[in-house]
Amino acid sequence: MEENIIFGKNAVTEALLAGKEINKIIISKNIHTDSKLNNIKELAKRNGVVFQFVAKEKFLPYSQYNHQGIMAQISPIQYKDLDEFIQEKHENDAVVILDGIEDSHNLGAIIRTCVCAGVAGIIIPSRRNVQVNATVYKTSAGAINHIPIIKVNSPVNAVQKLKESDWWVVATDASAKDNYYDINYKDMNFALIMGAEHAGVSKSLLKLADFIVKIPMLKDFNSLNVSNALSAIIFETVRQKLKN
Amino acid sequence: MEENIIFGKNAVTEALLAGKEINKIIISKNIHTDSKLNNIKELAKRNGVVFQFVAKEKFLPYSQYNHQGIMAQISPIQYKDLDEFIQEKHENDAVVILDGIEDSHNLGAIIRTCVCAGVAGIIIPSRRNVQVNATVYKTSAGAINHIPIIKVNSPVNAVQKLKESDWWVVATDASAKDNYYDINYKDMNFALIMGAEHAGVSKSLLKLADFIVKIPMLKDFNSLNVSNALSAIIFETVRQKLKN
Repeated sequence: MEENIIFGKNAVTEALLAGKEINKIIISKNIHTDSKLNNIKELAKRNGVVFQFVAKEKFLPYSQYNHQGIMAQISPIQYKDLDEFIQEKHENDAVVILDGIEDSHNLGAIIRTCVCAGVAGIIIPSRRNVQVNATVYKTSAGAINHIPIIKVNSPVNAVQKLKESDWWVVATDASAKDNYYDINYKDMNFALIMGAEHAGVSKSLLKLADFIVKIPMLKDFNSLNVSNALSAIIFETVRQKLKN
Repeated sequence: MEENIIFGKNAVTEALLAGKEINKIIISKNIHTDSKLNNIKELAKRNGVVFQFVAKEKFLPYSQYNHQGIMAQISPIQYKDLDEFIQEKHENDAVVILDGIEDSHNLGAIIRTCVCAGVAGIIIPSRRNVQVNATVYKTSAGAINHIPIIKVNSPVNAVQKLKESDWWVVATDASAKDNYYDINYKDMNFALIMGAEHAGVSKSLLKLADFIVKIPMLKDFNSLNVSNALSAIIFETVRQKLKN
């Protein structure tokens, strides 16, 4: 994935100034703060770009580059702005919100499923969730070019904004009372929140949900892959929309 | 995955004589036929074990072993016999038949989904389909210990046997007229055949199907990951069984 990484203070500064989509800026804990670095941090904050401090060993695989202890992961896609997305016309639309999905292959599969099921957009948090990197791009098998990906700093704020615009919010939780197919998904715009495989959807998001649903398990074994869980639910919403 | 591979004529012979589950025997094209090799081929045929001839370069990663140009992949699980499976009591059961699934991660995800959805067994062909290897075992996240995997030399014969025992056969095909949710899955034992992502279910199997179904796509983009396609269909069958 080296094609998506840029190295060194000047290159990172230029990318920020040019407004390029940056998934993350990674900075070695061992480099000295100077005016260039301060400038980068300032620009990153202003553009809402996440930066992360790591042990210098993380830079060992890149020793052939003049990295100066700083690198930035450039996104292969342009993310969409949430406000812009909300302002577009939506009628019986679905948006999927991912909360803590870490595996690139899972995100790629989720993107494919969402496109096939006519989902209007996918919202990913800028922290604690995989970004659209080269692996995601590849495993989406072209699907990524058919759906907007919306990156947000705060999924809680994103859900609140959607609710203010009359979107209904459905979250998944293994201990829910309702099954996912007990909800009527027709005649509304809804956001479906899917959590990480082990931690599930975070409590702050569950609190905002209008519906909390589970997938009933026929065996006492609860370990669906998150893209497969999403597929079961989202195609039930398609079934309801298409079925008379 | 080296822990699942054994090397050399004697070790492979012994594994065959002991009746160990062997996914595949791999033989270099460059080794001379001798009585030991003839014996291995004979035993493999008798036990229904697939053997494959490859260029000697395939053995380069294993040069530290005294491989003599022959190795065998030992299965991490004991496969179940189809006849035995059919003879067990089945009532409103489902079995999933995979036709040409090559990706280990996909098979792992499929196994997890099948266990969660209470599927009674998974049938995989011994050729042109991934076997249960170490990656499948790991990505199944423990699910593999909760469902029998049935390996068959001929999926066509397997489907015929199931039909003779009054199982109904559902196959997926993108050009089908019926949607998967138009079928009533209650009150019958059924086999669901899922094909490879690009090639789909083979014609010889489609011919045997009682129902051919598709997943309707809301966008003109038809590229579901096979485990996600299976999840959509199999949880619809669960919905029907649980819903009054």
